[in-house]
Amino acid sequence: MELLVLGIGLLGLLVAALLVFLVRKSDPGDSVMVGISNAIRQGAFAFLTKEYQYMLLVAIPFAILIGFVISPYVTLSFSVGALFSVLAGFVGMNVATLANTRTTQAAKTRGEGRALDMAFSGGAVMGLVVSSLGIIGITALFLVFRNTLHSSETASILVGFSVGASFVALFARVGGGIYTKAADVGADLVGKVEAGIPEDDPRNPAVIADNVGDNVGDIAGMGADLYESYVGAIVSALVLATLADGTFDTSKTSFILYSVGSGLLASIIGVVIVKFGARFGKLKPAFGLQLGTIVASILSIAVQFFLSVRILGSYMPFLATAGGLVAGILVGAVTTYYTSSKPVRMIAEQSKGGPATNIIAGFGVGMESSVLPLVIIAAALVGAFYANGIFGVALAGVGMLTTLGATLAVDAYGPIADNAGGIAQMSGQDPSVREITDTLDSLGNTTAAMGKGFAICSAALTALALFVAYSQQVGLKAELFNLLDPGVLAGAFIGIAMPALFSALTIRAVGSTANLVVEEVRRQFREIVGLLAGKAEPDYKKTVSIATSGALRNMVLPAVLMVAIPFVSFFLLGKEGLGGVLVGSTLSGTLLAIFMANSGGAWDNAKKLVETGYLDGKGSFVHKATVVGDTVGDPLKDTAGPSINILIKLMAVISLLFIPFLL
Amino acid sequence: MELLVLGIGLLGLLVAALLVFLVRKSDPGDSVMVGISNAIRQGAFAFLTKEYQYMLLVAIPFAILIGFVISPYVTLSFSVGALFSVLAGFVGMNVATLANTRTTQAAKTRGEGRALDMAFSGGAVMGLVVSSLGIIGITALFLVFRNTLHSSETASILVGFSVGASFVALFARVGGGIYTKAADVGADLVGKVEAGIPEDDPRNPAVIADNVGDNVGDIAGMGADLYESYVGAIVSALVLATLADGTFDTSKTSFILYSVGSGLLASIIGVVIVKFGARFGKLKPAFGLQLGTIVASILSIAVQFFLSVRILGSYMPFLATAGGLVAGILVGAVTTYYTSSKPVRMIAEQSKGGPATNIIAGFGVGMESSVLPLVIIAAALVGAFYANGIFGVALAGVGMLTTLGATLAVDAYGPIADNAGGIAQMSGQDPSVREITDTLDSLGNTTAAMGKGFAICSAALTALALFVAYSQQVGLKAELFNLLDPGVLAGAFIGIAMPALFSALTIRAVGSTANLVVEEVRRQFREIVGLLAGKAEPDYKKTVSIATSGALRNMVLPAVLMVAIPFVSFFLLGKEGLGGVLVGSTLSGTLLAIFMANSGGAWDNAKKLVETGYLDGKGSFVHKATVVGDTVGDPLKDTAGPSINILIKLMAVISLLFIPFLL
Repeated sequence: MELLVLGIGLLGLLVAALLVFLVRKSDPGDSVMVGISNAIRQGAFAFLTKEYQYMLLVAIPFAILIGFVISPYVTLSFSVGALFSVLAGFVGMNVATLANTRTTQAAKTRGEGRALDMAFSGGAVMGLVVSSLGIIGITALFLVFRNTLHSSETASILVGFSVGASFVALFARVGGGIYTKAADVGADLVGKVEAGIPEDDPRNPAVIADNVGDNVGDIAGMGADLYESYVGAIVSALVLATLADGTFDTSKTSFILYSVGSGLLASIIGVVIVKFGARFGKLKPAFGLQLGTIVASILSIAVQFFLSVRILGSYMPFLATAGGLVAGILVGAVTTYYTSSKPVRMIAEQSKGGPATNIIAGFGVGMESSVLPLVIIAAALVGAFYANGIFGVALAGVGMLTTLGATLAVDAYGPIADNAGGIAQMSGQDPSVREITDTLDSLGNTTAAMGKGFAICSAALTALALFVAYSQQVGLKAELFNLLDPGVLAGAFIGIAMPALFSALTIRAVGSTANLVVEEVRRQFREIVGLLAGKAEPDYKKTVSIATSGALRNMVLPAVLMVAIPFVSFFLLGKEGLGGVLVGSTLSGTLLAIFMANSGGAWDNAKKLVETGYLDGKGSFVHKATVVGDTVGDPLKDTAGPSINILIKLMAVISLLFIPFLL
Repeated sequence: MELLVLGIGLLGLLVAALLVFLVRKSDPGDSVMVGISNAIRQGAFAFLTKEYQYMLLVAIPFAILIGFVISPYVTLSFSVGALFSVLAGFVGMNVATLANTRTTQAAKTRGEGRALDMAFSGGAVMGLVVSSLGIIGITALFLVFRNTLHSSETASILVGFSVGASFVALFARVGGGIYTKAADVGADLVGKVEAGIPEDDPRNPAVIADNVGDNVGDIAGMGADLYESYVGAIVSALVLATLADGTFDTSKTSFILYSVGSGLLASIIGVVIVKFGARFGKLKPAFGLQLGTIVASILSIAVQFFLSVRILGSYMPFLATAGGLVAGILVGAVTTYYTSSKPVRMIAEQSKGGPATNIIAGFGVGMESSVLPLVIIAAALVGAFYANGIFGVALAGVGMLTTLGATLAVDAYGPIADNAGGIAQMSGQDPSVREITDTLDSLGNTTAAMGKGFAICSAALTALALFVAYSQQVGLKAELFNLLDPGVLAGAFIGIAMPALFSALTIRAVGSTANLVVEEVRRQFREIVGLLAGKAEPDYKKTVSIATSGALRNMVLPAVLMVAIPFVSFFLLGKEGLGGVLVGSTLSGTLLAIFMANSGGAWDNAKKLVETGYLDGKGSFVHKATVVGDTVGDPLKDTAGPSINILIKLMAVISLLFIPFLL
């Protein structure tokens, strides 16, 4: 029966392939548009290729280490886990950079519905490939090794797969996050501020790098992040699905695999609804996107109820998975509230006092916005535990990600629409084209806010599930793992410091990489004769390459630190102290990630609100103040915050893999 | 023998009285100076009086509740604890507002040494009165009730005293913090920015309110905060100093009381050294201030070693107290580093890119600066526990505060020097006078950074000590109070959200109070004919009164929330879950308090650095960017951050007092 799940995974890949085919055969537009799209495409691939080369330098010794310390099988699963993530990144990036110009062209010739269809099809490939590869990898490894090896060895192999996923996510999210903001700052600071040319102007040597950044940060990075969460949640649930004698409880493992399989199927249905709703113009874009996600969620929940009662003989496991999903949706809704509506208007109002009051207001909004999500996560935790014990906590993590195929599709569609707008601008299309892409883009911003909340909530629940699996694998005893133990408490203090350290390092990395980009852009403006007059072409490739190597060089220190901390903590404070570190970093990591995502989002939207004419409109004193807020928020919401999501999961999964063997 | 400790407490009051006498008989300067000083004085007393009236409205029902739920004795100790804090606040404020104009006059007529002498004498009164009253209150209650009541009842009475201290600290620190920043923003925004008149200009209707704010925020607020820490640390140590049968272990209690008594004596000696060193001009100001603190610390540590070996027969307890002191000094040193030297120069450099890069740089510095202090606290925790178990944790809290008399003297001296500078400016003294007060003020800024780090570290250790005492009093069992329990973990999630919620509320309170002040200042500029021409006087009192009532009204919501949260958490999650809330809030509270204090301090000093001519100097583009950073940092470092110190201690001490009776 588990073969059926593998089949659904393959079906997901098939649908994705079909979508790629449909995108590919659409009209890519005129040669100028295609030229720009190709430049973005080449830049994105150049970045990804170099990023993965850097990664190999670390991944190969790490894989060998795993082989010696643990087992060659785990080296294998680690490699497959990493490879699948790389594959998903390339496929997603490929279709995204095909879809962008086709979205512009569709907006130009066939209207809003078709443009949405195109952008969403691109996003859906990412969503489907990520979840299909996750399901295929986990199910295949589980089926192959379950009957040949001991359960604990099979568990290690699954965890290895998850570590592989985390490893790629680290590079994709952190490296991509540094890249995208450095390019953005470089393009804005020299182009908009110093040279006085508009955004997305083809004369700007950093304009392609900026568009590449949207792809590598928001598409490949987001994809790798959620792939890591997805795999981590499923693996920790499988690891916890054991009987008293340590062997797998097959009804529990079936429940998990069937749940994620049916979730993928529901996601495919959701994707089809959105796509055809858009294509035939039957649904309004905002409603269509929502409808797809809602249908997928309802179908998925319904099947889980049936599976829970039939396979496990109780609706309690269903309550845990559904609780996770509800928590994710609620956190997303809170995020949406704080990055739109009243709080954003308040920030805009406060900007009348200048940049300082704008920053203070956004800071307050960000702090406040973290409260409800933390309470929601606490409630989900308690609910899941009472429904199904420690296993329930892992199920909650799985539950919120079962429809990842659909939710990630909606997330990844935004940056494609954004890119399409850039291409419209750079290729000098009629303003009406830009209007359509702007509508789609602003819709994307709303769904992105939801998606970010979802990603943070899933990172927190996955990190908790992995931590719980860790506690079982290393045999943490309740009476030793208590908060009155000085080692545990000290671990928690050190743990809460880690996301702060990591934020400081990534923010600084953005600063130094941005400086390199700024210098290069200035140099080109100075040295390339006739550039500003539009008579000569800038050297886009050079800028891309400088941003790429800068971002990757500057991510080495934070990356190495992150991998080292679990080991150092274990040697200093023991397995209980390391447990404290994991909990502490999950706690403050969740707090800071929400704060950064929401303050950044709220500043961004306050600026956009003023630009639509609210208060004194574009160019006014108020507008300038909101631009400062937006610039401050950018590295928080797009680099430091998302990196924290990786930090807390990676530390947990590395501990889960290695510590049982170091004991 | 414990009577000797009472005697030292009385000696401290005597020395303080002598200092008041010496300050009082000094030359207060000409009638303009005295007039300004009186206005500040009246404003400060008006604020304190109104603040305490507001407080009574809450304190009286609370005291009655205590009498019914627990015992009338505890109502008594609560009232005495609160009363002593009020008393210390009035005495400290009284001498500070006497010393400010006399410092200006000394700078004018007798040079730097005498000016330092005067400002420091004012600060020393605050330091000595706070620690003397703390010691007298605790020792007297302990001696009176130890032999007449059961140990657990005596413990409750001591905790009641501590809750009284916390209650006043809440109003002083939060209300004062909101007031001082609202007045500051109001004065700057309308005076400096809109009307274009310099800082501390007598034509500005908010100038007195601004100076009042320095006193109520930095002197009365800081004093009440550290009084709360001091009392909380000693009380939690006494509560934990019990034998197996629950009665007091008299050798342990003696050790605690002798340690704090000898610490006060050492502080008196330190104060004398600074005072006479300054008076006779034998020591450079910076060196003199340091020497006093260092001598007090060394003397205090030496006596603790002797007491530890003699009374408890081991140097282990000494290691715990000394460890606490060392931790406090190290955290102070880290704070000093991040708010001066390299990080500050880096922020100034980054300000070349405008306000946004200034903010991002300061944000990164603040995040990074929290890492080492958290590790230091973790190390102190582990060290103290291995030295002397749970009791050792409380001893570490006591250890770092034994020389509070000297350290608080140095802290409280800064705002007096700052006020003296304001008076020099407003009364139109020769620039050379302002130069002297500026030197003293900038020296005060350095010691203030140290003092803030110290206050945060002491708040964290005291909160932990109170939490540990709570865990003993409610009988938390290790196997139930573990991090795998969903209630504990959920409590930790809710706990980490509390400092964020509280920061958002206090930041918003500053905003709305500042708006009231801004409107009033604008009104006066508009309606009082000839004000800007210097031909009419502004209505200082009106501004003071508006800022006062605004601040107090806006602190009601955060204050009520803070008191309610322990009860709500207990009813929802039980005593273990409440333990999780206390630990969670201490964790994120420490992180956020350090982040806010240090980023705020670094932004402030980056601005000052540029004003001294670094980079492009005052009035330049870089300078304007640093002004934005300074304005953003102000409510963080002076309102939200310090309020968190109170939050974590108050929640712990309220739980410690009430929950044993609610069980």
